Amino acid sequence: MLKQIYHSIEAFYEEMVHIRRHLHQYPELSFQETKTAAYIANYYETLGIPYETNIGGNGVIATIKGGKPGKTIALRADFDALPIQDEKDVPYRSKVKGMMHACGHDGHTATLLTLAKALITYKQELPGTIVFLHQHAEEYAPGGAKPIIDSGAIDHVDAVFGTHLWATTPVGVLQTSKQAFMAGADCFTIEVQGKGGHGAYPHETKDAIVIGSQIVSQLQQIVSRRMNPLDTAVITVGIFEAGKAFNVIADKASLVGTVRYLNPDLQATIMKEMEAVIKGICMSQDATYRFDYIKGYPPLINHKEEAALLLQMDQHIKEITKTETIEPSMAGEDFAYYLQKKPGAFFFTGAQKDKQPFPHHHPKFDFNEQAMPIAAKTLITAYLAYQTR
Amino acid sequence: MLKQIYHSIEAFYEEMVHIRRHLHQYPELSFQETKTAAYIANYYETLGIPYETNIGGNGVIATIKGGKPGKTIALRADFDALPIQDEKDVPYRSKVKGMMHACGHDGHTATLLTLAKALITYKQELPGTIVFLHQHAEEYAPGGAKPIIDSGAIDHVDAVFGTHLWATTPVGVLQTSKQAFMAGADCFTIEVQGKGGHGAYPHETKDAIVIGSQIVSQLQQIVSRRMNPLDTAVITVGIFEAGKAFNVIADKASLVGTVRYLNPDLQATIMKEMEAVIKGICMSQDATYRFDYIKGYPPLINHKEEAALLLQMDQHIKEITKTETIEPSMAGEDFAYYLQKKPGAFFFTGAQKDKQPFPHHHPKFDFNEQAMPIAAKTLITAYLAYQTR
Amino acid sequence: MLKQIYHSIEAFYEEMVHIRRHLHQYPELSFQETKTAAYIANYYETLGIPYETNIGGNGVIATIKGGKPGKTIALRADFDALPIQDEKDVPYRSKVKGMMHACGHDGHTATLLTLAKALITYKQELPGTIVFLHQHAEEYAPGGAKPIIDSGAIDHVDAVFGTHLWATTPVGVLQTSKQAFMAGADCFTIEVQGKGGHGAYPHETKDAIVIGSQIVSQLQQIVSRRMNPLDTAVITVGIFEAGKAFNVIADKASLVGTVRYLNPDLQATIMKEMEAVIKGICMSQDATYRFDYIKGYPPLINHKEEAALLLQMDQHIKEITKTETIEPSMAGEDFAYYLQKKPGAFFFTGAQKDKQPFPHHHPKFDFNEQAMPIAAKTLITAYLAYQTR
Amino acid sequence: MLKQIYHSIEAFYEEMVHIRRHLHQYPELSFQETKTAAYIANYYETLGIPYETNIGGNGVIATIKGGKPGKTIALRADFDALPIQDEKDVPYRSKVKGMMHACGHDGHTATLLTLAKALITYKQELPGTIVFLHQHAEEYAPGGAKPIIDSGAIDHVDAVFGTHLWATTPVGVLQTSKQAFMAGADCFTIEVQGKGGHGAYPHETKDAIVIGSQIVSQLQQIVSRRMNPLDTAVITVGIFEAGKAFNVIADKASLVGTVRYLNPDLQATIMKEMEAVIKGICMSQDATYRFDYIKGYPPLINHKEEAALLLQMDQHIKEITKTETIEPSMAGEDFAYYLQKKPGAFFFTGAQKDKQPFPHHHPKFDFNEQAMPIAAKTLITAYLAYQTR
Repeated sequence: MLKQIYHSIEAFYEEMVHIRRHLHQYPELSFQETKTAAYIANYYETLGIPYETNIGGNGVIATIKGGKPGKTIALRADFDALPIQDEKDVPYRSKVKGMMHACGHDGHTATLLTLAKALITYKQELPGTIVFLHQHAEEYAPGGAKPIIDSGAIDHVDAVFGTHLWATTPVGVLQTSKQAFMAGADCFTIEVQGKGGHGAYPHETKDAIVIGSQIVSQLQQIVSRRMNPLDTAVITVGIFEAGKAFNVIADKASLVGTVRYLNPDLQATIMKEMEAVIKGICMSQDATYRFDYIKGYPPLINHKEEAALLLQMDQHIKEITKTETIEPSMAGEDFAYYLQKKPGAFFFTGAQKDKQPFPHHHPKFDFNEQAMPIAAKTLITAYLAYQTR
Repeated sequence: MLKQIYHSIEAFYEEMVHIRRHLHQYPELSFQETKTAAYIANYYETLGIPYETNIGGNGVIATIKGGKPGKTIALRADFDALPIQDEKDVPYRSKVKGMMHACGHDGHTATLLTLAKALITYKQELPGTIVFLHQHAEEYAPGGAKPIIDSGAIDHVDAVFGTHLWATTPVGVLQTSKQAFMAGADCFTIEVQGKGGHGAYPHETKDAIVIGSQIVSQLQQIVSRRMNPLDTAVITVGIFEAGKAFNVIADKASLVGTVRYLNPDLQATIMKEMEAVIKGICMSQDATYRFDYIKGYPPLINHKEEAALLLQMDQHIKEITKTETIEPSMAGEDFAYYLQKKPGAFFFTGAQKDKQPFPHHHPKFDFNEQAMPIAAKTLITAYLAYQTR
Repeated sequence: MLKQIYHSIEAFYEEMVHIRRHLHQYPELSFQETKTAAYIANYYETLGIPYETNIGGNGVIATIKGGKPGKTIALRADFDALPIQDEKDVPYRSKVKGMMHACGHDGHTATLLTLAKALITYKQELPGTIVFLHQHAEEYAPGGAKPIIDSGAIDHVDAVFGTHLWATTPVGVLQTSKQAFMAGADCFTIEVQGKGGHGAYPHETKDAIVIGSQIVSQLQQIVSRRMNPLDTAVITVGIFEAGKAFNVIADKASLVGTVRYLNPDLQATIMKEMEAVIKGICMSQDATYRFDYIKGYPPLINHKEEAALLLQMDQHIKEITKTETIEPSMAGEDFAYYLQKKPGAFFFTGAQKDKQPFPHHHPKFDFNEQAMPIAAKTLITAYLAYQTR
Repeated sequence: MLKQIYHSIEAFYEEMVHIRRHLHQYPELSFQETKTAAYIANYYETLGIPYETNIGGNGVIATIKGGKPGKTIALRADFDALPIQDEKDVPYRSKVKGMMHACGHDGHTATLLTLAKALITYKQELPGTIVFLHQHAEEYAPGGAKPIIDSGAIDHVDAVFGTHLWATTPVGVLQTSKQAFMAGADCFTIEVQGKGGHGAYPHETKDAIVIGSQIVSQLQQIVSRRMNPLDTAVITVGIFEAGKAFNVIADKASLVGTVRYLNPDLQATIMKEMEAVIKGICMSQDATYRFDYIKGYPPLINHKEEAALLLQMDQHIKEITKTETIEPSMAGEDFAYYLQKKPGAFFFTGAQKDKQPFPHHHPKFDFNEQAMPIAAKTLITAYLAYQTR
């Protein structure tokens, strides 16, 4: 049966490309993907596959219940785009100003839709239940995964698999990890409130730029002194804004940044240590502060056996010439939430187009569409392998 | 004669106020004071006093050659306004949107013009030559004093006196100093050029915010470690701007600030030490920089004997109830240039209006017009005293 | 045969303990272990096993050439002690004041010697050649491993295995890793040369304490900003010494510390970045410096397949109840050098004595002697398994 | 009479030198100057001048009550030496190992004693009462001045004058100031208590060297940001000691230093700001601290009119070729306490010996003995001038 399914997937390649290119031309931002959701729903409607919409927001879930008993496994594809102006010179370029699918979610969606179409024929022979989980809003925390989970939509699911087409990995390579695979990614804002005044009379002020600068320096020491050297953590201040006039001491400084980590336990420690640094430095100069720490996606931790199963895909799918365990990516991914709830694993499907590919989120980002059928095959192969595990 | 001159000045008080209020309603910004210059020129024209215009820009110089031999002494008044919206509720409020005489230069001009009118009658009895030096552009470096000096206009002058109506000092008080009276005031811009990149991959970047923060911290140590503790120096970073996105490491940081100092020798030292700090810190992290140091007005250093002469004014002018030596102001004043060239002294004429006066450069700034005749009397008394010194 | 060898090892347990306790009472410091070396040599002499002494210093190497063809594999045991006063209350307590076997090298030696004795009987049946590598001076860089290698003593060897009895891991547990298992450990000294002077006249000096303090702060940012967050690196300043009088600005500051890292490529980067920081900070304040970076042992990187073989030891040795992959230790170990030259792996043999064991290098350190026969069995089992690989 | 007194002083020059050289050979440390005190007492005994000993410790006070009415004025000379080995090659070199009069207090004493002898003859003609105030322990805080004052010994005194022979000022020059003339000089110790541990495991520690380094850096910002730029303040950390082993994170750091200031109000501010910095930085890293701030001598603030009187000495004493107002010295002097209680002034009597004189407290320090009679003349002239003021 697997061979036949592969064949069907190949047969639908043209449609796959068509769907992807259509979506590519009509990108929608996170939490606003109503047309894309309707497109997905309509596709299942046409196929006669039962589906539900408005899951945890704009999420769409379709289900194929196989003719044979087995586990219920969700395959996830996200479908939101980014506020980036498309600068590619291709016929399927984005038609919406200032928005584009610069991360490949259009491809994820086309892959999953076409896979569903390819599977209908084999419904009776399929073991278990396939849940086609189309998730909105992956790009923008708090993301779509959490409300989908909160809606109860995956309560009955036994495992979850998902992939990201990865434009900087050659086609034919599958990458994953048996442990932390993508980082926890948080965001913070520090507002230092000093006291402004004439640039020549510092003693009448509390210099917010001097205070903010010390905070920047000392935040770096959290990583080097307060973290286990074997752990991975990053604290970056990306924005420092203070002062309006060269001869006036600034009363406020605004520092905005990001935190990344792989070990879920670190989040609480980093928050505590950051607060201690900010509080101590402000106290040392009689200033006050506001510290907002916005928790983003947690680290994405693959489950060992599910990831191991993915690493054997080269034994099944001839297009996969290599599977490899890679070091974690420091990017975030809200697939992490599913793996907190259920067994499963996430992987990268190599989708490199050119020798020197543009990275994800680049205005000229594109991926190799040949990767889509490989992704589809991997998902269904993982599904079937997991049934007999 | 002095008594009579005092009497004349008092007699012209109404006109003095009228001139001041007229100018107050039609402020002009530094280097753009053409109408004010024309008004001044016209006044001397009407009085029949010889004058020259366009001195070093918009400067106007009138001259009364006394009937008796004596020294040539310049009395200086500046006449530019500021880009501040007048928020006072008075009939003579500024009629020009976004501009006002928020520092009293209108009063300086009215004082000097009326003094000239008061002196005409006594021309034959007056010793020496009085130079009425109306200077443009004091508020904005490089200022009007320098080009006026460069034009040769004070080459023949023996001494220069000038005053500032001082709105936070009570009427009747004359303040000056026998040494440094106002600070040198410079401006600088530091552009740190690091290398931007993803906030989670610091090792691929050179973090301009981290580098800039270290520069801020270490610049402060120039004052505390590289300056003689008996000297006065201030280095203030007033603006710190870097980064645009919370999760992107900034490639550039821009630091803009001011330097103040009283000892003229310090300027070169401060510049050298700042460059050393910036260079060293950037080198330590393989970044580059641009350092622009714009020299502003030098410290205003009064000449000892000329200042001493001013400190005796309470013996001559009954309205002056007190003269005092004060600590230097950290503000700048381009009268400093005249004192680099010629003997002379600068002083504050108390002009406080209300119990809690608004400071200079405040949108509600105003001064007590009663101070104007006192200033006029002080200037001519100093002139005469200096003749017989 | 394996069963029989195990049996022999068990039979010699009393002797094993006796040897260990003898050595424990007569510890010798690194590079001074002449009596211990003679003891080892004498043991092989008595057994009639050929050996060589003074290998790369005090090293001793004995060889049993098996009757069957096969690979030549070295089993390594170190034998130096530490400058620590023994505070244990046991009959076999150290008899040398201020020295003790506080790390278990006495046990390593007893294990290897007794293993040799146990194997003589099976000489003809044994495949390959067993090299009993008794290494001096592991505790003190540059260590004994390097000169032993430089002497050519392992040139003909096909693989190397070694173990450390680990007093904080329960008996029966074998711990290792398929990658970096122990850290690179270097040492550095920074001498800041400023200019001393009166504490009240900082401008005439270059304050070495201020400069040194900035170096300390900025060295921390190398780890957080210049290293890949996925890499492991530590820079610690352990000693800061400067100044003699409270009212005199120090001319010199001395900073001494350690660097740890797991990825061998990092050493060069850390050295370069440290030099940049020191140079830049000193330049920023016109000071000079001396920077000595003493390379210690490199990271100990196990070879994958050799480590995998160790992780299967629980299938052979019934006393081994568990094998596990652990996170790397940040301590250093000059076994690392052997693994740079030859395939092989290093592992910890659980040797916990009490519930709350004293750590290695503690004055009350001791280990469970039951671990020695387990170590012996593991070494010979690995040897044999590697022959048939 | 003044002429005659001058003549007497000159006549006793040989004795003056003899006394000075005797004291120079037998120096005694602060608070241990019993023999010197006895020598002084004996001198007055021999002269028949009434005196008291053990004033506030080793102090000696003699009194000549003039025959005419007038004010009671104290003339002060200190008499302690320093723990410095005399390296001069002169016949009167110190005979006590490791001690010497390296600051000229021997000269002060010889000057005052001989002056007393010179005045006896003129007793009846002298107005007022001369108090010869021989003070112990000037070199070592808390000093001798305070207990002498506390003893009530100067309660009845109307004014106090004192001088320091100044070896780096040419003979014939008198230096003083009408305001702050010498600095307040305090001392502090900061003990940072972190948590020690293995150099490779910073997260289990609180690194006292890192914390101490931040304190050093931030203390410097008190001077540059929290002090009025017109004020003078110095904070110097002279000693930084922490850590014992290169690979162990230090649990404690000890910082010892000095504070100097001219404006008495600053002391409280500096203490408060230092505590804030130390507290804030320690809090930021969960460390604790001990902060001991030992108040030393306050700033020595001359009284205006008394100093003015000294500045006219060149009109009376032909050897004084120049009097000048100088910038304050940053050194401390417990004469400051007398001036907190009574009118008076302190001055430097030029006493330069060689072209390139050794500074005070130098092992080769010496002064020009010709300065002693000049100092004696100045003191008695000031005494007499003050009587008729």
